[in-house]
Amino acid sequence: MSYQSPLFWPATLKGGTLFVLDETLVPSKLKYIPVKNVSQAVAVVRDMKTRAFGQFLVVLNAFLLELNAKGDLVAHLEKIANQLNRSRPTFPFAEVTGIIVGVAHKAEANGADVRAAVIKTVEGFLAGIRGRRLERLRQIANIIENGDNILTHCNVSGELAMAANIALSEGKKMKFFATETRPYMQGSKLTVWELQNAGARVTLVPDNTVGLLMAEGRVNKVIIGSDRSAANGDVANKVGSYQIAILAKEFGIPLIVLSQPSKGVPSGDAMPIEIRGEGEILKFGGKSVFPAKARAFYPGFDVVPHQLISKAIPIHAGL
Amino acid sequence: MSYQSPLFWPATLKGGTLFVLDETLVPSKLKYIPVKNVSQAVAVVRDMKTRAFGQFLVVLNAFLLELNAKGDLVAHLEKIANQLNRSRPTFPFAEVTGIIVGVAHKAEANGADVRAAVIKTVEGFLAGIRGRRLERLRQIANIIENGDNILTHCNVSGELAMAANIALSEGKKMKFFATETRPYMQGSKLTVWELQNAGARVTLVPDNTVGLLMAEGRVNKVIIGSDRSAANGDVANKVGSYQIAILAKEFGIPLIVLSQPSKGVPSGDAMPIEIRGEGEILKFGGKSVFPAKARAFYPGFDVVPHQLISKAIPIHAGL
Repeated sequence: MSYQSPLFWPATLKGGTLFVLDETLVPSKLKYIPVKNVSQAVAVVRDMKTRAFGQFLVVLNAFLLELNAKGDLVAHLEKIANQLNRSRPTFPFAEVTGIIVGVAHKAEANGADVRAAVIKTVEGFLAGIRGRRLERLRQIANIIENGDNILTHCNVSGELAMAANIALSEGKKMKFFATETRPYMQGSKLTVWELQNAGARVTLVPDNTVGLLMAEGRVNKVIIGSDRSAANGDVANKVGSYQIAILAKEFGIPLIVLSQPSKGVPSGDAMPIEIRGEGEILKFGGKSVFPAKARAFYPGFDVVPHQLISKAIPIHAGL
Repeated sequence: MSYQSPLFWPATLKGGTLFVLDETLVPSKLKYIPVKNVSQAVAVVRDMKTRAFGQFLVVLNAFLLELNAKGDLVAHLEKIANQLNRSRPTFPFAEVTGIIVGVAHKAEANGADVRAAVIKTVEGFLAGIRGRRLERLRQIANIIENGDNILTHCNVSGELAMAANIALSEGKKMKFFATETRPYMQGSKLTVWELQNAGARVTLVPDNTVGLLMAEGRVNKVIIGSDRSAANGDVANKVGSYQIAILAKEFGIPLIVLSQPSKGVPSGDAMPIEIRGEGEILKFGGKSVFPAKARAFYPGFDVVPHQLISKAIPIHAGL
């Protein structure tokens, strides 16, 4: 594989410090935020310095940052699990944090080394995730066919760009449309940059052009990621995914979702939708650009019901 | 009527100069661009300093600016009609410019005063349009019901806000959602400002939240304007209107369109879609904010087929 995106693995532990790619600065800057404890970990998650997959890496690695705590280590790990769980309502961190706390409890009960047990579990998770992500790249590359015009929304943390790079190396030709993805502009900032670095052709479009692109036959496939999956196959993803899914159905265009292993909820109805601050819509680059009195509404995610998903490419459960 | 929006009548002739509201600066500034001849008129239209309705006012008034030309006045009016027709591909300026040139030819053939004939025609048009726009406000106010949650897209040049003001004065309570309308942000800049000044409650939402708002039952009515109407009832409007129309159908929400009288084309298929410069997507406030190499695609308009329109409120033909 020739192209590796910094977004593919945005948080790496080195010498007791977790280096987290500040995805809000990409592509202007490749800056890594040093995270040394759970409070700093919660801050990068809550401030969305890194996104879905990076947040998951931060949550896992946060336990490794706190193993030198004094006093009752198991009680301490329970406390940091709670802090991490509360950092974002949409994400099911409790599943993985619960497993790690469980491992610590079991080690303590068995008189084993709690520290070693937690390290082994977290490192095992990380190795497994990396392997399964590399495997999924292969599956996404297989989905891409010569001549495809693929619409994507938001950003799937390196996977789509790296899969495109594999498909290109196999002689397939394809073109991407990336939605801007208001208000964070992940499409404009991350997806366009990644796909270009991967050697792929990509055109940026406003979120409101999807219907026109489809009606004009400019798109024959939609590939999006997801932040969370329900047991019935519904997924939560960046707001806008749902209306793209309805439009794809209207025009008979297959919708492919890179789904998550989580089975924490039975269906999308049970997934809480996080409402983000309205400042994210009313400001640009930190500056207020619209009428001061304006009110705004920014639901961070929406749910795509499984009936609208043509094919899910899961990351196989490894927790 | 207590609230009158500057957008309702954005171009007024005074003392030989046409004062055109620079809608790109609203609401930060209420600046009027002085337009003294047809070249300046073409420039404000081409640069979209004013929008659909304002452009129509500019095209009409441009003839009054050129009545003191030396030489063959009728030939001169034909020339400026051509210049105006070429300024924007989506808009059917040829219809109205053709009528004015026709009036000039007829006056000349009858030995009448060409100048007086053109003035009478243009002023007649302007008076008729104003009367019909005031009449339409009443119809829009009647459509608004107590308790409505109304989604709108882009901006309808004062009409929706002034109609909301009438409805409010009748004791009706309603709430609006305005899409941002990328990339020009007419929703953020114009619609929110106008509706607030009219005393109405309005919430700004990204273009990609429409599906979620509808699925959650937060919207029970959609009211949009249009730039152009076809004989079969199809309308061209700001890009994004089409996908909102599909979503409204999906959720059984009525779509009301303030339509245009033009019957220049049989159906939406025959309306050319103007492709605007990609800089409008890649820059913000004139500054490049995304990867320099990025390509973008910005179709300015899309077409809503008449089958998706629940009710059209036309401006009755007066040309």
